[in-house]
Amino acid sequence: MPEIPFSRISSRKKKVLLPLSRIEHFPAGCTIIEFGAKADNFYVLEDGYIRLMLSSSCGGKKSTIDVLGPGGAFGEESVTNSGLYNFTCVALDDVEVRVIPGDVLRKILLEDPELIFRMMGRISLNMHSLMSQIADLKMRSTAERLSMFLIELSGLVKGESVITLPYDKRVIADKLGMSPETLSRTFAKLKKVGVRTVPGNKV
Amino acid sequence: MPEIPFSRISSRKKKVLLPLSRIEHFPAGCTIIEFGAKADNFYVLEDGYIRLMLSSSCGGKKSTIDVLGPGGAFGEESVTNSGLYNFTCVALDDVEVRVIPGDVLRKILLEDPELIFRMMGRISLNMHSLMSQIADLKMRSTAERLSMFLIELSGLVKGESVITLPYDKRVIADKLGMSPETLSRTFAKLKKVGVRTVPGNKV
Repeated sequence: MPEIPFSRISSRKKKVLLPLSRIEHFPAGCTIIEFGAKADNFYVLEDGYIRLMLSSSCGGKKSTIDVLGPGGAFGEESVTNSGLYNFTCVALDDVEVRVIPGDVLRKILLEDPELIFRMMGRISLNMHSLMSQIADLKMRSTAERLSMFLIELSGLVKGESVITLPYDKRVIADKLGMSPETLSRTFAKLKKVGVRTVPGNKV
Repeated sequence: MPEIPFSRISSRKKKVLLPLSRIEHFPAGCTIIEFGAKADNFYVLEDGYIRLMLSSSCGGKKSTIDVLGPGGAFGEESVTNSGLYNFTCVALDDVEVRVIPGDVLRKILLEDPELIFRMMGRISLNMHSLMSQIADLKMRSTAERLSMFLIELSGLVKGESVITLPYDKRVIADKLGMSPETLSRTFAKLKKVGVRTVPGNKV
């Protein structure tokens, strides 16, 4: 899980920030951010899962680039010079987000450049996760990608464990770059090495 | 081409920066940055091409994540808190880079937070390019990916043009997530729509 960027902010700054930010709720399926819209806000996920989506560079169907859970943050475009959101963001379940207006965040960051370096560090980590995803898409088989995803969820490499899938199998398929049919076939393949799926999204 | 991050730096700052940075040369094939090494420097490409490479998340063969040309910059880990390079960087031809020590850059950025926002904007753009690449890998055929790469190189969508490939076909294949054999077959497919390859890396 990524670190919440403001977990280490001074309590004096928090007092300034909290009244200037707000909590918003979005039901499952709701579009929180539309690609290309003016980037007004920075978001920190308090509860629920969201998917970041993008059309391929010449348009068409949207693909899931990443899925973020509690603690995840997005919308740094609201403080940089680009000014437009680079992705579409959709709620996967009931989502609670802290919304920080970009101009408020920019002011706080300008007063505390150390905080900017921390935020840059977080962006840099996100970039690394995208780069790993590219390497995996280019070099790993569907079975290897699904296995790594499950290992990451379980936090274990050895021993037995029961994993509850945090979101829908169709979203997992899209995140891992497979069709839902390929995901089912890949789960079937992993049966041979002891991966069992049971009803209720448990593995 | 990405904007050089310091093209709009004040001339006073440039006077401070230039004597504190240095020019280095690397011949083709030379490793400029090793994954996991201590991130001491930020680099701006003055001449030549480099490839950013990463192993898939469970090790093994390295894959080309991106190729940068003149004006490209990398190594923001040198000013953030992570402190270790997130990728391997290899020279594709004779490369000339401006090397800016991380502590020098950090000092200059602390004095001019507006410059940090510009740098964050550049990182955000790089992230968008990685996200597009993921969407393309998941949704586009090899012929579509090669066509888009050629269109980007030519800067044209209509009309005839001769494109000189800026780097080796094996690197292009790796960047586009295909084997060299698939790239050849894909060039053959594009022949039907008028794409001709001629000796000397011209298309």
